[in-house]
Amino acid sequence: MNQLPFFITIPLPDWLTERLAVPMHLHDDEARMRFVIELSRENIVCGTGGPFAAAVFRAADGMLVAAGVNSVLRLENAVLHAEVMALMFAQARLGSHTLRTGGGIHELVTSCEPCAMCLGATLWSGVARLVCGATREDAERAGFDEGPVFAASYAYLEQRSIAVVRGVLRAEAAAVLDHYRESGGVAYNG
Amino acid sequence: MNQLPFFITIPLPDWLTERLAVPMHLHDDEARMRFVIELSRENIVCGTGGPFAAAVFRAADGMLVAAGVNSVLRLENAVLHAEVMALMFAQARLGSHTLRTGGGIHELVTSCEPCAMCLGATLWSGVARLVCGATREDAERAGFDEGPVFAASYAYLEQRSIAVVRGVLRAEAAAVLDHYRESGGVAYNG
Repeated sequence: MNQLPFFITIPLPDWLTERLAVPMHLHDDEARMRFVIELSRENIVCGTGGPFAAAVFRAADGMLVAAGVNSVLRLENAVLHAEVMALMFAQARLGSHTLRTGGGIHELVTSCEPCAMCLGATLWSGVARLVCGATREDAERAGFDEGPVFAASYAYLEQRSIAVVRGVLRAEAAAVLDHYRESGGVAYNG
Repeated sequence: MNQLPFFITIPLPDWLTERLAVPMHLHDDEARMRFVIELSRENIVCGTGGPFAAAVFRAADGMLVAAGVNSVLRLENAVLHAEVMALMFAQARLGSHTLRTGGGIHELVTSCEPCAMCLGATLWSGVARLVCGATREDAERAGFDEGPVFAASYAYLEQRSIAVVRGVLRAEAAAVLDHYRESGGVAYNG
């Protein structure tokens, strides 16, 4: 067996780095969701991962802080869902493990309702708001398991003052998942 | 605001890298848990994070594949709980996003019942068994939130053929949490 590595490196895909080079401000949920859905589509087209994307925005002025795309197969790392990528890069950019500090309130926008892991990561991230596009059912139709997420899971977030909005541009977001399945994309956790 | 980084680097703490330099085989749950509890204690002593540790073992011969300690404050990254670290490093070592491949069945041993995020990460990791020391109540007593984990969450894992064993050396594991709280340790997500 290989030696245990001393460190892990997690790069964004090149196309996403290029895409994020220009500062961007998006001011409402639909504009942000449209951007995130575009990234989820691009992630399929570029062959860099599953059909999921997410981004962190600063609430006050809509500044795009960080974005992530599913990188499970690209980096052979099952933790690297889109939401985890976006949150880790946002925390790295702010230099803080909580997005409650570092210049304002932040929100996570994701192309699909988070799996159990990402819902937990959202809770620990310090975002004040979670905005979702496609639903669990849409993800399952494409062959993806979402894990143990229940109505009580969302209630738990709301009790901790994280607002949750679901179903923003759902049809557009779900269409990317359907396209992935129809084009023979792998559901690595199905 | 800082530029968005192109990549994130996640190193193990130096003391853990040294500790793992010598190959190790541990053959039963108690021996593995004792090792993991030791790491959780060491993580406090060395000031490299919260009082949590986890490790991945190969079921067949007890080989230690990877270990992780809580690194949230050390690396300013809220995703880097002990279980996430251990699973990511195990996947990096095996070169696979699933621990179901790469030479056998693997098990995750954690000093404390996983939070919602880590329970999800366990599900996606491909481990066949989850072994826990301290309980949710023990973590909460030390000021840590565990998130939306319910009886149904564990049932969900078991339905997907992940065996769950809880309460192994609970008192010893909980003692580390109590010590952390008593010595004024920060509950960064409390």
